[in-house]
Amino acid sequence: MSFPETMLAAALGAAGVIETRKFPTPEIGPEEVLVHVRRASLCGTDVKIRSRRFFPDGGPPPGTFIPGHEYAGVVASIGSSVDEFAVGDRVVTEAHRGCMRCPNCLVGGYTNCLNYGNRKKGHRVQGMTVNGGFAEYVANHVSTLHRLPDSVDFDSAVILTTAGTVMHAFDTLGSLVAGASVAIIGPGPIGLLGVQVARELGAQPVALIGTRDGRLDIGRRMGADLVLNSRQNDAVTAVRDATGGYGADIVLECSGAPAAVDDALHMTRRGGTVVLVGFFGQPVLTDLNHAVMNGISIETVRGEGAGSVARAVSLAGRGRLHTEALVTHHFPLEDIATAFDTYIERTDNAIKVMLDVSG
Amino acid sequence: MSFPETMLAAALGAAGVIETRKFPTPEIGPEEVLVHVRRASLCGTDVKIRSRRFFPDGGPPPGTFIPGHEYAGVVASIGSSVDEFAVGDRVVTEAHRGCMRCPNCLVGGYTNCLNYGNRKKGHRVQGMTVNGGFAEYVANHVSTLHRLPDSVDFDSAVILTTAGTVMHAFDTLGSLVAGASVAIIGPGPIGLLGVQVARELGAQPVALIGTRDGRLDIGRRMGADLVLNSRQNDAVTAVRDATGGYGADIVLECSGAPAAVDDALHMTRRGGTVVLVGFFGQPVLTDLNHAVMNGISIETVRGEGAGSVARAVSLAGRGRLHTEALVTHHFPLEDIATAFDTYIERTDNAIKVMLDVSG
Amino acid sequence: MSFPETMLAAALGAAGVIETRKFPTPEIGPEEVLVHVRRASLCGTDVKIRSRRFFPDGGPPPGTFIPGHEYAGVVASIGSSVDEFAVGDRVVTEAHRGCMRCPNCLVGGYTNCLNYGNRKKGHRVQGMTVNGGFAEYVANHVSTLHRLPDSVDFDSAVILTTAGTVMHAFDTLGSLVAGASVAIIGPGPIGLLGVQVARELGAQPVALIGTRDGRLDIGRRMGADLVLNSRQNDAVTAVRDATGGYGADIVLECSGAPAAVDDALHMTRRGGTVVLVGFFGQPVLTDLNHAVMNGISIETVRGEGAGSVARAVSLAGRGRLHTEALVTHHFPLEDIATAFDTYIERTDNAIKVMLDVSG
Amino acid sequence: MSFPETMLAAALGAAGVIETRKFPTPEIGPEEVLVHVRRASLCGTDVKIRSRRFFPDGGPPPGTFIPGHEYAGVVASIGSSVDEFAVGDRVVTEAHRGCMRCPNCLVGGYTNCLNYGNRKKGHRVQGMTVNGGFAEYVANHVSTLHRLPDSVDFDSAVILTTAGTVMHAFDTLGSLVAGASVAIIGPGPIGLLGVQVARELGAQPVALIGTRDGRLDIGRRMGADLVLNSRQNDAVTAVRDATGGYGADIVLECSGAPAAVDDALHMTRRGGTVVLVGFFGQPVLTDLNHAVMNGISIETVRGEGAGSVARAVSLAGRGRLHTEALVTHHFPLEDIATAFDTYIERTDNAIKVMLDVSG
Repeated sequence: MSFPETMLAAALGAAGVIETRKFPTPEIGPEEVLVHVRRASLCGTDVKIRSRRFFPDGGPPPGTFIPGHEYAGVVASIGSSVDEFAVGDRVVTEAHRGCMRCPNCLVGGYTNCLNYGNRKKGHRVQGMTVNGGFAEYVANHVSTLHRLPDSVDFDSAVILTTAGTVMHAFDTLGSLVAGASVAIIGPGPIGLLGVQVARELGAQPVALIGTRDGRLDIGRRMGADLVLNSRQNDAVTAVRDATGGYGADIVLECSGAPAAVDDALHMTRRGGTVVLVGFFGQPVLTDLNHAVMNGISIETVRGEGAGSVARAVSLAGRGRLHTEALVTHHFPLEDIATAFDTYIERTDNAIKVMLDVSG
Repeated sequence: MSFPETMLAAALGAAGVIETRKFPTPEIGPEEVLVHVRRASLCGTDVKIRSRRFFPDGGPPPGTFIPGHEYAGVVASIGSSVDEFAVGDRVVTEAHRGCMRCPNCLVGGYTNCLNYGNRKKGHRVQGMTVNGGFAEYVANHVSTLHRLPDSVDFDSAVILTTAGTVMHAFDTLGSLVAGASVAIIGPGPIGLLGVQVARELGAQPVALIGTRDGRLDIGRRMGADLVLNSRQNDAVTAVRDATGGYGADIVLECSGAPAAVDDALHMTRRGGTVVLVGFFGQPVLTDLNHAVMNGISIETVRGEGAGSVARAVSLAGRGRLHTEALVTHHFPLEDIATAFDTYIERTDNAIKVMLDVSG
Repeated sequence: MSFPETMLAAALGAAGVIETRKFPTPEIGPEEVLVHVRRASLCGTDVKIRSRRFFPDGGPPPGTFIPGHEYAGVVASIGSSVDEFAVGDRVVTEAHRGCMRCPNCLVGGYTNCLNYGNRKKGHRVQGMTVNGGFAEYVANHVSTLHRLPDSVDFDSAVILTTAGTVMHAFDTLGSLVAGASVAIIGPGPIGLLGVQVARELGAQPVALIGTRDGRLDIGRRMGADLVLNSRQNDAVTAVRDATGGYGADIVLECSGAPAAVDDALHMTRRGGTVVLVGFFGQPVLTDLNHAVMNGISIETVRGEGAGSVARAVSLAGRGRLHTEALVTHHFPLEDIATAFDTYIERTDNAIKVMLDVSG
Repeated sequence: MSFPETMLAAALGAAGVIETRKFPTPEIGPEEVLVHVRRASLCGTDVKIRSRRFFPDGGPPPGTFIPGHEYAGVVASIGSSVDEFAVGDRVVTEAHRGCMRCPNCLVGGYTNCLNYGNRKKGHRVQGMTVNGGFAEYVANHVSTLHRLPDSVDFDSAVILTTAGTVMHAFDTLGSLVAGASVAIIGPGPIGLLGVQVARELGAQPVALIGTRDGRLDIGRRMGADLVLNSRQNDAVTAVRDATGGYGADIVLECSGAPAAVDDALHMTRRGGTVVLVGFFGQPVLTDLNHAVMNGISIETVRGEGAGSVARAVSLAGRGRLHTEALVTHHFPLEDIATAFDTYIERTDNAIKVMLDVSG
């Protein structure tokens, strides 16, 4: 597949500014794959990146850095050692490549790489520490790509990066999910995917807790057995009532609301697990003694983990994830600033906002 | 619910003989539940019991013992401490109750109870060490019963005991199954349920290996992506071909054929897991060095494990297990000898043979 | 072994009152063992019990209830089903016996029994929900006793109940400890035992953080590689410096001080584990986002878990735990009120305060 | 540190031949470290390599390949990305570096790399697929080296590669070892290290089974509670007797004798684990049904695993492994052929045979 020497991409400008300009098309190393991006989507982390709050040190110079870590496309070129993919393969990405030499990477914990941000040692996160997918072309390490089944279109595929995060939340349990009761707090994209994944893995019942009826309705259509508007219901009591008085085996906190942690702990069964998937913008005041007295574990997930995107891709290939239902808006790459505004302001009930990058 | 003082049940006679007669209806203790049995099914272990080969010491005196460990029915009476069930509840059973005081039981391994067969200490296996379900009424420990969803009829329910065994095979992995490749050797009831459970837990692909085309056809209808008649195909090569040359992540050996173990090992991916679910009638000659050189683990399952029947019941309640498709024959309890013969001789392609005990 | 019809025991009175009086010697059931108590020790939970703050419902009528869950003694009598022990065996206790029929107990989580406090279903905690060991005789379920090696004297033995809690903290990790770095916050009895256990399991380095130099000195003698007075040192920085800048693999929070949780999280390596062993008297304000961003798990332990006391007994039998060094005071059972005051006020640097109950 | 352009190394010749000659000193890449080898030791795999039986395809041309995967030395030079080590650091090696991009490597299973032998993708095993340590200098990937504590001399250090294999056997359990009963079959270097590691991790009792009294005596001195000459004792019965009749929780098969597997299975407790550490030269005939009926898992270990050598180094640094006691012979590198003969023929009761390569 031939590709041009320059490409259109969205560059991070001053805080709050992102706009397209021409970049050289990336060159790839022996272990890399050049991806011709078709679709990319926005995530909360992108919002922090655009505002530059994401970067403790201020971040890269304006006009030099391309964000974007959720994207799918077509393989345009492969590095000299790559035989896992061929030109023309349809692929979706995961964000993290570890250094693969620190103690965490060596035992499979590459999303917790101890050399985070150290490019010299090989660590990279697409769209965060190296250029990402808000671009016509992007260079990925071969280990960050997953081949798409024919049945999964690009809109659906892009959401699988997020579905990998949700899958990883269940991966932390070290057990099957079938027959377990699951409660999910926060009906954003992660929480709504959580409903689908929980249900497909066999959870029962699956409860979804939120504050906006529109989102809860979507959750119900996606398979939640029980939806609870926490402004109108005592969600803790309702989840306990739905689980024989004991609480849910597994609670996913996907809202990032500090007050939700206490609810999460109190709607968890003795000996159960809370998984924190949302990011908190401030310290959390919570009744940790309840966790101690009840043997509740608190796991954390900051993104996909080893193998989790592959699991999500497989389920999607079986037609068991309906990720496209979360895609509410499309913009051409040139309109990325409008896309960000739409996503942040939830204009027209925006959930996932998609950039149609090419083809 | 009232119940009579005597009941019909099938008693083990001399080796090879089983026939119905009247027994006193069991009395229950404080932790027990009296189940009015509706359906019971035959399993390979029952065949060993009828022949008395199951009992190293010859077994109980003729006419005194009631086999049967796969059954479902209705709660007829509850012990004084029981509030988990109410009279009239529809239930299915699991076989094992541990002593719950040995080191294995205390850590959750009650099917490997160190006091196996010691009734004084509380261990019991329905239909093996205490009277079972080939009877109108049977006394179960409360921990061995699971409430049936309304949508699951009794024919389907009885098979859930077996489905629990299959679920336990996946429980041994300590991880999700979604996205993993699974090969299953032996299309008997366990293997066919294995296909369904693997698929529902998200495995891909799911391969089924056997020697009889009729059974393999059923496996295909139950969701196997690939069926292989090992008399016509090199199953090891075929499974490797279907998994990128690497072999399956998980292989379930359900045939009990000694030669199958070598196939199982060689169709497993480096670092993968073989689960032995079938019973072997003789020593197995196998290339264990292949397991050592390739980091393959061999897990074993002799029946359901903690929580596994509950997981199966939950999946069935969602309409995701089609266990009734395995039920090929029904007999009244009085015709139990014919039922055994039909099952052993696979008359008319018998798979699961059901006793209609009551109601 | 003969034993009298009545015995001396310490009864909980009005809030804050505990005093000895005569009780009938307990009768034992088929699964129970009568223990002739030699030594018992006080724990923080006993303080809450004496104050009656432990009981949400006010607790048992004055003069009827015997606290005490850390004790060792000699088997005086065994129930009809007991062959695990013989009269004359020296034993130490663990506190919890589960119902052994709820989903948690069935999978090995009996300290998180869903029928907590339900004696009818078999759950009991010695000295909390049933009579305990501040008495000449106490009835224990057989599963709560562990035979003492000859080399372990009763003073050392009593502390093994607490050592079991510490061992359970390491049990939650699901891996070996050898070679891992461990930081322990709070040099109370649990923290000091934590130092010993961590070191014996092979941890390196082992850091101990506290506020009192006397306790830290004991910790150093017990094997801490690094002791840090957090009033004089920045403990987070010091632990990071001692671990190559990464933080400790495992941090045990044993202080119950709410501010310690933030320190614990920040001195943990990416992908590491914090185990909360201390009880918190108030809500905890903490930077949970740091846990999310760094993949840190938070496990909790409210006491010993399945198998953990047995592990501690085994180490002690090898001469590898020096629990007697924590015993600072002895009182006869009659002086139990003084013993409580000494423990609470830490009179003469009291650590573990022992009751010499008999012989 | 300066180093010469050429070096002495032992080259594999025709089958059965190994002899020293001059090689160019290796050049290192950005992620590599040049090690000045001080000591190297022989292992059973080296014997297969010398005979060329190790290589299915015949192996590398004579005179081109340097074996050796157990060695320790001093860092002579570091690659451009390396800051984990400095010139002059004393180090020991582990054998495996994975491709770090296949599904197994990504989840921490790099010793089961799916790209085994594929150097282009980065997989390498020192002394097997790339040049090893029977040389004055060797190039190692940075992830395969571990810094030595000052207290560990080079003789002791070399054996830590083997100790890592043993540690990995315990790593497969997913739990602590403290308080568990362990039986070890085969008192070769691995089995004898197994005794030490088991004991240090807190196992009790530790039994060692073999056929030569001399080796068993060494095992006793290294801490075995029970040593059994299987030519004179029924080892299965003896292990059961020493474990309350139940069998050992963990059995390590380190002999590679096919008949030992049956013994291993029958001396394992219900629900226990057999770890196969020895290599088998022929198919194994064994009673796998006993494993199935008793819920026994069979794990396998072909060498060290992620983190296991680091654990062993840490224990050694605490003075808790006495690996030097296994070193019976030293030869200069030039006498490597004699060293091989001594090792193979067990001349003068040879256990570990050491090459003094330099300094």
